[in-house]
Amino acid sequence: MFEEPESLEQIVQRITRQAREASYGLAMAETASKNAVLSRLATILEESVEELTAANEKDLSAGREQGLSGALLDRLALTPARIAGMAEGVRQVAALPDPVGEEIGRLAPASGIDIRKVRVPIGVVGIIYESRPNVTIDCAVLCLKSGNACILRGGREAFHSNKALSALVRKALELEGFDENAVQLIPTTDRAALGVLLKQDRDVHCIVPRGGEGLIRYVVENSTIPVIKHFEGICSLYLDDEADPTMALEITLNAKCQRPGVCNAIENLVIHRDFAAKHLTEIAGGLRAAGVELRADTESGALLSHAGINYKPATEEDWTTEYLDLILSIRMVSDANEAVSFINRYGSQHSDSIITENETTARRFLRGVDSSTVYWNASTRFTDGFEFGLGAEVGISTDRLHARGPMGLQELCTYKYEVFGKGEIRQ
Amino acid sequence: MFEEPESLEQIVQRITRQAREASYGLAMAETASKNAVLSRLATILEESVEELTAANEKDLSAGREQGLSGALLDRLALTPARIAGMAEGVRQVAALPDPVGEEIGRLAPASGIDIRKVRVPIGVVGIIYESRPNVTIDCAVLCLKSGNACILRGGREAFHSNKALSALVRKALELEGFDENAVQLIPTTDRAALGVLLKQDRDVHCIVPRGGEGLIRYVVENSTIPVIKHFEGICSLYLDDEADPTMALEITLNAKCQRPGVCNAIENLVIHRDFAAKHLTEIAGGLRAAGVELRADTESGALLSHAGINYKPATEEDWTTEYLDLILSIRMVSDANEAVSFINRYGSQHSDSIITENETTARRFLRGVDSSTVYWNASTRFTDGFEFGLGAEVGISTDRLHARGPMGLQELCTYKYEVFGKGEIRQ
Repeated sequence: MFEEPESLEQIVQRITRQAREASYGLAMAETASKNAVLSRLATILEESVEELTAANEKDLSAGREQGLSGALLDRLALTPARIAGMAEGVRQVAALPDPVGEEIGRLAPASGIDIRKVRVPIGVVGIIYESRPNVTIDCAVLCLKSGNACILRGGREAFHSNKALSALVRKALELEGFDENAVQLIPTTDRAALGVLLKQDRDVHCIVPRGGEGLIRYVVENSTIPVIKHFEGICSLYLDDEADPTMALEITLNAKCQRPGVCNAIENLVIHRDFAAKHLTEIAGGLRAAGVELRADTESGALLSHAGINYKPATEEDWTTEYLDLILSIRMVSDANEAVSFINRYGSQHSDSIITENETTARRFLRGVDSSTVYWNASTRFTDGFEFGLGAEVGISTDRLHARGPMGLQELCTYKYEVFGKGEIRQ
Repeated sequence: MFEEPESLEQIVQRITRQAREASYGLAMAETASKNAVLSRLATILEESVEELTAANEKDLSAGREQGLSGALLDRLALTPARIAGMAEGVRQVAALPDPVGEEIGRLAPASGIDIRKVRVPIGVVGIIYESRPNVTIDCAVLCLKSGNACILRGGREAFHSNKALSALVRKALELEGFDENAVQLIPTTDRAALGVLLKQDRDVHCIVPRGGEGLIRYVVENSTIPVIKHFEGICSLYLDDEADPTMALEITLNAKCQRPGVCNAIENLVIHRDFAAKHLTEIAGGLRAAGVELRADTESGALLSHAGINYKPATEEDWTTEYLDLILSIRMVSDANEAVSFINRYGSQHSDSIITENETTARRFLRGVDSSTVYWNASTRFTDGFEFGLGAEVGISTDRLHARGPMGLQELCTYKYEVFGKGEIRQ
């Protein structure tokens, strides 16, 4: 007598079925019980520094062998300080209000039935991510707090770290009397497993892919489960002819340079012709001093040439490129309407900003730019769950259905209608 | 010199591009201007009875030739009375409040930026539907009022009717100074056109398929655009041991018989063993008198046999079948928890109801049943945009992201964050 080993397909289907079963209990759980799991997890993380750094070392040495860059190895590393930071993050989520069960609407139609719209968990959420192992804890914890079971599928480079981290979450669940299958990691980095996962639309209710174009494309093309994409940010800053020059310079430098490798940093500077004539030289000089490479259209290039400022000519491709680096494209326009059209055409509908003292122009820009977050006189760098005061985020949705922009606990919920009757029937 | 005719792919891509261009103007339109289009359309509909019935007659005669059933031909027919009803419906939508621009949330984080969450149109919505031509007007009008451009793809049987109706909407748009491409009908019933449409994720932001399993499956498997499914209703009514017997009988008859061909009619009757022992005979007798065929599990079947009531044994398939007809499956359970498990396992997460006098049992059922609408002491037949007081509906979403249950004007919107700053930069 022997058991056949499970096929990859069977493994993934078992995981998704288990997740759905676990989701029912979690959806009904009291806030205090969910918080107890989180407190327990924070303690376990603090007690498991050796275990975690040992698992992480396996990933790091494999990474070094494969010649991963220093930046990538740094993203991958779990240090004692980072583990302490994770535990602190878990306690912060425990302190956030529970979104589940809140009444968010009420309808009282003529028939007499009393309709309550109530916030409830989505159910089972699949999260597909790349290298950083702390995403395992962030996402598991946000899903738990919002009453969702989750299935995690991290990157190949962080596999041992993710396994060790998810095992600790499961231990915390078990110790607090929860079904540990509320959090499961896909136990292989085989891409075929992802393909199977994306077809389990009966058991999994939402897929959140975070990553580069290849991953997002693969998920969108293969998933029969609704997807909330967390994709790139091609963000623009528009300097209007009525912009305050000091504010324009400060915000340009902040939005480009404060942390160029993130999605809410700007890639395109759109500038009004009249403002450019007076101030482009100063702004471009500031950017160059901060080490930024400039790529300019013909008109702005002429101004830069004249001032002896180094730049490359921008190509059509530049307007749609997420550099994630100290590179900025410059585009001249005749007015705010042309800026709006440019941004809607070339941007990725993430975060864009206008600098102007004219409220009418600003309000037209705020409404006209078709992006999840549009700023007036502020840096695009604020698009972030913590900066928005949501307490935490699964990521920043670049989709427009269900969740748009920073996705926190409320965005991990859907709603249902609970209807209270007294025997009403339809006439 | 001659122009190459456009390929099917080029036609669909031109339509989606035009829709996106038209969507920007519509998103910024004032309420009064949108309402003017709707009033104009109502008048045009009333003046176009002859033209519409002539176009409809082409569909009807083709349908008769193809041997469509009387019920299907009736769904297809545009009579003067139905056209008058459509015009009235358009005026009702004009009278509804405009959801666009409403501030639905506000955040004031420590950085000092002032974040307003504002309701905005989704953008471009594609609606895929089957036979009834009035859906063309209903959906076009709801999209217009909510500031969305729409692409309509109706059923083959109603092609000439849909063409005539959509031409009238475009005429109303043009007469009121709007881009008529805000409403476009795919000008072919070739399924390949649908396949192309479902890949235009750059220009189309949401697909709403309304129809049977084959259509929904095709859309889900082929779309790279987010989909909000409008699928079947496998709804259950649970009669608890603490149910009021008179209410139980009335609601059972209403939920099954008042209009059996719709998604919110029940297909399964779940009944507590103790209640069944006392009342199943009377309820089953009432159902039989109303012409309902019964399919019973072994235990309830034994009670029916004993009372001399005609039934068929239920198969496993019966529990997941949407009859849309005077057929009802009966399942016996030991308690409300078993009822919840049965409904979550076999139902389609649409509408389910419990009849009980016990509030604790009711509240556990309301929270535990994982459906968009859950009732206590009321008929499932109320799941409907009009009955909910939404004024109108695109349909009833069986998905759980973005829109769940009746989908009205608000559910045709997403949100954006408009952020007001005073020069804030990220530290």
